[in-house]
Amino acid sequence: MNQIKVQLDSRTSASYKIHIGLDIIDRIGVLLNKGNWINRHIIITDSRVNTLHGERVVDTLRPMDLKIDLIDFPAGEASKNIQTSLRLVENLMALGADRHTALIALGGGVTGDMTGFIASIFMRGLPFFQIPTTLMAQVDSSIGGKTGIDIPAGKNLLGTFYQPQAVFIDLSFLQTLPDLEFNNGLAEILKHGIIEDPQLLTSLEEEIQAVKKREPKLLEKIITKSCRIKKRIVEMDEKEGGLRRILNFGHTLGHALEAESGYTISHGQAVAIGMVYAATLSEKLNYLSSMDRERIESLIKAFELPHRIPRDLDTKALMSRLTKDKKKEGALIPFILLKKIGLPFINGEISDTIIRETIEALKA
Amino acid sequence: MNQIKVQLDSRTSASYKIHIGLDIIDRIGVLLNKGNWINRHIIITDSRVNTLHGERVVDTLRPMDLKIDLIDFPAGEASKNIQTSLRLVENLMALGADRHTALIALGGGVTGDMTGFIASIFMRGLPFFQIPTTLMAQVDSSIGGKTGIDIPAGKNLLGTFYQPQAVFIDLSFLQTLPDLEFNNGLAEILKHGIIEDPQLLTSLEEEIQAVKKREPKLLEKIITKSCRIKKRIVEMDEKEGGLRRILNFGHTLGHALEAESGYTISHGQAVAIGMVYAATLSEKLNYLSSMDRERIESLIKAFELPHRIPRDLDTKALMSRLTKDKKKEGALIPFILLKKIGLPFINGEISDTIIRETIEALKA
Repeated sequence: MNQIKVQLDSRTSASYKIHIGLDIIDRIGVLLNKGNWINRHIIITDSRVNTLHGERVVDTLRPMDLKIDLIDFPAGEASKNIQTSLRLVENLMALGADRHTALIALGGGVTGDMTGFIASIFMRGLPFFQIPTTLMAQVDSSIGGKTGIDIPAGKNLLGTFYQPQAVFIDLSFLQTLPDLEFNNGLAEILKHGIIEDPQLLTSLEEEIQAVKKREPKLLEKIITKSCRIKKRIVEMDEKEGGLRRILNFGHTLGHALEAESGYTISHGQAVAIGMVYAATLSEKLNYLSSMDRERIESLIKAFELPHRIPRDLDTKALMSRLTKDKKKEGALIPFILLKKIGLPFINGEISDTIIRETIEALKA
Repeated sequence: MNQIKVQLDSRTSASYKIHIGLDIIDRIGVLLNKGNWINRHIIITDSRVNTLHGERVVDTLRPMDLKIDLIDFPAGEASKNIQTSLRLVENLMALGADRHTALIALGGGVTGDMTGFIASIFMRGLPFFQIPTTLMAQVDSSIGGKTGIDIPAGKNLLGTFYQPQAVFIDLSFLQTLPDLEFNNGLAEILKHGIIEDPQLLTSLEEEIQAVKKREPKLLEKIITKSCRIKKRIVEMDEKEGGLRRILNFGHTLGHALEAESGYTISHGQAVAIGMVYAATLSEKLNYLSSMDRERIESLIKAFELPHRIPRDLDTKALMSRLTKDKKKEGALIPFILLKKIGLPFINGEISDTIIRETIEALKA
C-alpha cells in the first residue's frame, strides 16, 4: 500500500493522506476508527456502485466497531443536482446525522463531488472520506478538494473547496469498471504525464498491454505517480488561484466538446481530443516539436481514446463555447499549451482564426 | 468611525475589518475599490430594505468607479431557503457574475446569512461584503462568518463558515428600524455585556433613555463594544469547536421558544426570555447571586423586552425541544449558565426536574 500526504497551506483545511493499494478496504476501518470524535459514518453511493460493492464495503466496515449506514441515489450525472442533494440531506436527517457524523463518498466523480458538497454545507460542515471507485475519480476528482453540483445554467456552478479527511484508493474496484470508464481515467493519467512527468509517459508507452489488462501492481505504481502529480499541484494552489490551471490541459476544448455533444462524448474522451487539439495548437504556434505532438497522439490512440473532433459538431458553436464573454468579441478562454512534454504554459492570446482553423483541421 | 480588525487563526480565511460609524456609506466605495482584482459588485437585499435604502446605496457607490448592480428577494425569514437562493444564483448568472464579482449583503440577518451562503458556494466561492442594516445583524449575525439557509427539517441546516472581506456598520440605517427590530438587537448587546463585559451593562443602565432614542454617538460606542466582544470570541473559536458556545447564552431555551411559538416570538424576544431563564437557573443552582439575576431581569424589562415565558406554550413540548436525542431520556442540550456577570460556563448536567420547574416558575 502506498501513502501520499497532501499538505495544504492553511491551518483550517487539515492535511490528509491518500492510501493506495489492492484490497485495502479492511484497513479503511482501522483508519476511520482513529477519528474518535466521529461516532458514526454514513456512506453515500449511487445505485450502480451500491449493487456492485455496497454490501461488501458495509460488511467489511461494520464489524470494526463502526456504526455504518448507507444511502444511495440513482446513478448518472443527471443526479448531480440540488434535488438529489436535498433528498440525501433528508436521508441524513432521518438517520439522525449530526456534527459528529462523517460522510463517506463511495463511487465515481458524481458521488465524490456531490457528497463532498453536502459534507461541506450540511450543518456548516461534516468530516468526509473519499473511496473513489472509478479510475477517473481515483487519479483526479477525489484529489484536490473541489466539490460541486450542476444547475440548469451550468455544470459545477454550485460548489466549495472542501478537503476530505482521507482518500482510500482500492484497486479492486477497477476490476468491475467498464472499458469506457477505465479509458476515461487513463485520459487524466496521460494528462498528468504530459504536463508534469515524461517518465510516467514512458512507463505507459512500455506497458500498454499490461495497463489495458489492468494488472494491479502496475496500476498501483501508475496511479500513485499520477496522484502525486495532482497533489503537488493542488498543494501549491489549493484554491485555483493560477498555477492549478495547468490541470486544465486538454479541458478548454474538452469542456466545449462535452457540452456541444449534449454530453454524449464522455469527459475522458473529450479531454483526450482536447489534448490532441492543445498539442496541435502548440505545434502550429511553434512551441512544441511535431515529435512530441505525435507521441501524445499515439498514446491516446493506443489507449483507444478518440483523437479527432466529430464532424457533426459545428465549429461556430464550439467557438462560441470557447468565448469567455458572449458580448465581447475575441474574448476567448485561455488555452494551456506545451513548450515540450512536462512544460505547460497558459496562453490567452491565440487568434480566433488559428483556433478555428485548428478545429477544422482536427475534424474527422 | 471605529475599526475593529478580526484576525482569524488560519491563512485561508483572510482577516478582515469591521468599520463602524454614522453615514459611512460614501467611504464604503473607497474601501471596496481597494480590492482591485474585483471588477464588479452585486448587492443582494430584500424588498423592504431595497425600498428604504437600495437607491441611496447604489447612488452613493456607483459614481466611485464601481460597477454596481442590485438584486432583491421578498423580505422575511420565509425567503431564507434553497428556492430563493437558486433564484438569486440565476439572477447572478444573468448579470454575468464570475469569480471576479463580489457580493454585498445589504440587510438584516436573513440577507446576510443567505448572501454569505450563496457567496460561499457559487462558483466555489466569491468574495463578499456585509452591510448590515438591523441592530441584530450589526452586533451579531454579520460577525463570525456563519452563513446558512433553512430547510423544512430545520433552520440553518445548510450553511458554511465563510468570512466576509469586510463589514460596514452604518448607524444611519438604524433610524428607520421598527422598535421591535431595534429591541431585538438590544437583546444580543445585553447578552454580550452579560457574558463578557459588566462595564457595557453599566453603560446601558446609565443611558437607557439615550439608547432608546438611538442617539448615534452612544450607539456607535455600544455597538463597537459589542462587536469587539463577539469578534474576540470568534477569533478564539472560528469553527465553533467549544468556547464559542458561550455566545449561546439565553439561546438554549430561546430557540425552543421561537420554534414552539411557530416563530411568532422573535429571535431577540426569545433570547431575552432565555437569558432571564438561564439567570434564574443559575441562581437556583447557587451559582449566581440574586442581585445579578435581578440586574439582568431589570435591564431586559427596561428595554421593553419580554422576561416571562408565555403561558400558552406547553412545558412538555418545550422540554422535548430541549432534548438532544429524542430517543434517549435525559439527554438535554447543555445550558450556558453564569457564575457572575462576565463569567459564563457550560453545564450539561442539570436535572430534568429543575429545568421543568424553572420553566413553570417563569410562566406568565
